Amino acid sequence: MLVGVFDSGIGGLTVLRELATALPEHDLVYLGDTARVPYGTRSPETVIRYSLRVSSYLADLGVGALVVACNTASTHALPALRLAGDRAGIQVFGVVEPGVEAALEVHHTGAIAVLGTEGTIRGRAYQDAIRLHAPDVPVEAIPCPLFVPLAEEGWVEGLVPEQVAEHYLGHLRGRVDTAILGCTHYPALAPILHRVLPGVDLVDSARATAKAVRTAFGPPSAPTGTVRFLVTDHPERFQRVGRIFFGHDPVPVEWVDLGPAKGPFAMGR
Amino acid sequence: MLVGVFDSGIGGLTVLRELATALPEHDLVYLGDTARVPYGTRSPETVIRYSLRVSSYLADLGVGALVVACNTASTHALPALRLAGDRAGIQVFGVVEPGVEAALEVHHTGAIAVLGTEGTIRGRAYQDAIRLHAPDVPVEAIPCPLFVPLAEEGWVEGLVPEQVAEHYLGHLRGRVDTAILGCTHYPALAPILHRVLPGVDLVDSARATAKAVRTAFGPPSAPTGTVRFLVTDHPERFQRVGRIFFGHDPVPVEWVDLGPAKGPFAMGR
Repeated sequence: MLVGVFDSGIGGLTVLRELATALPEHDLVYLGDTARVPYGTRSPETVIRYSLRVSSYLADLGVGALVVACNTASTHALPALRLAGDRAGIQVFGVVEPGVEAALEVHHTGAIAVLGTEGTIRGRAYQDAIRLHAPDVPVEAIPCPLFVPLAEEGWVEGLVPEQVAEHYLGHLRGRVDTAILGCTHYPALAPILHRVLPGVDLVDSARATAKAVRTAFGPPSAPTGTVRFLVTDHPERFQRVGRIFFGHDPVPVEWVDLGPAKGPFAMGR
Repeated sequence: MLVGVFDSGIGGLTVLRELATALPEHDLVYLGDTARVPYGTRSPETVIRYSLRVSSYLADLGVGALVVACNTASTHALPALRLAGDRAGIQVFGVVEPGVEAALEVHHTGAIAVLGTEGTIRGRAYQDAIRLHAPDVPVEAIPCPLFVPLAEEGWVEGLVPEQVAEHYLGHLRGRVDTAILGCTHYPALAPILHRVLPGVDLVDSARATAKAVRTAFGPPSAPTGTVRFLVTDHPERFQRVGRIFFGHDPVPVEWVDLGPAKGPFAMGR
């Protein structure tokens, strides 16, 4: 089966990496909307519109399943994407539910912290999912807007990233025992986060999502899958910065023009 | 006359503020492309395509002149916009030439630093303009990617912004006497920049551009002008963050759908 992985840009490569390991027998096509990244500061309406357009393009390629790697898109657009996916016969996975389930597994007695973009935190999808499954667990939801540009610069060690993390998260020390990395970029900052929040379990939604998709697909067969990369802006920066998140060069990359959303995906505004 | 002010998002409000003072008799319409901001990390091709689309929309509103407030758009798209503007009878102003002229006026004997986004620095428009006018002046061109997110968070004082500035610019101390703030967001960081680069003249392209437009228009008449704000994403964040750059609330704001570029502005790819 062809599995589409949709991200606002580059960070979703952390999810793709986990999926490539978890789904070795499937062909993966990654679409990074690099001409419109970041989604994290945009309104829910715009994120939904962009998400339907990207997903429509992937549907035209014939994907049988769609993984929404971007946390902000998962937060705002999952209901619209699921509705369209149902009509198109495409199973749609987000990163929020798997991340929350993984957090509740490791959580002990303290609060759970949710770290994300401005849009993800304001959208409250993580907070609502935790309350649904564990209404008594206190939640600390913290937007960390500088983490994405720091990670994309590869500036993930040293005084500045540590002080930025301290500024956002220092007040959580001793009060939280689990922190959900609710943005694809944040695993790059894990070493710093461990220093600022010692003893706190960091839950990587990327890994949890890959596990959830694997479970839904059943046991793996022989590894014959391929990986292909599509982007909506020039591939140069994607390749250069992508290494940070994918571990090695994301190649080959094709530049695509999305066109308007079609069929079931044209339903939204 | 109706004067269009085009920016990738919010930062161009620093240019608008200067224009509102310099052109009191003209009506100003500001269009921030907040659904596609930032331009600073995008390819030249995408910046040109987006710039033509925004300018086409402003041309349809009947602007007689167009000020490109965004440094990255000025860097990549000015030739294409001037060509289209000539055919449409619209005078097009960028921020690069005025910034360079202002820098050369205050410059003494050291190097000139150009601070900007990744795209502005890679596009070399500032560097080329300085070399054209003053071939013997050494230029230090430095991308400062974290300055925009810091400014948009309003995090412009304290240890973190000072250390970020030190990281990017500390090595210039004693070697430059003039620094061009080649991004609309950077004036918000001026106090920090003065501390990291003591004695260095900071040249604000916003002020220089407003002066250049005023000169081209001739002496002012009675102040009867109005200001109007258009954005391509939901106005909420624009209003909230816009205060930092405009000095007071940017109101009223309308949300617009650009549609495709038309007429002379449809020439580009």
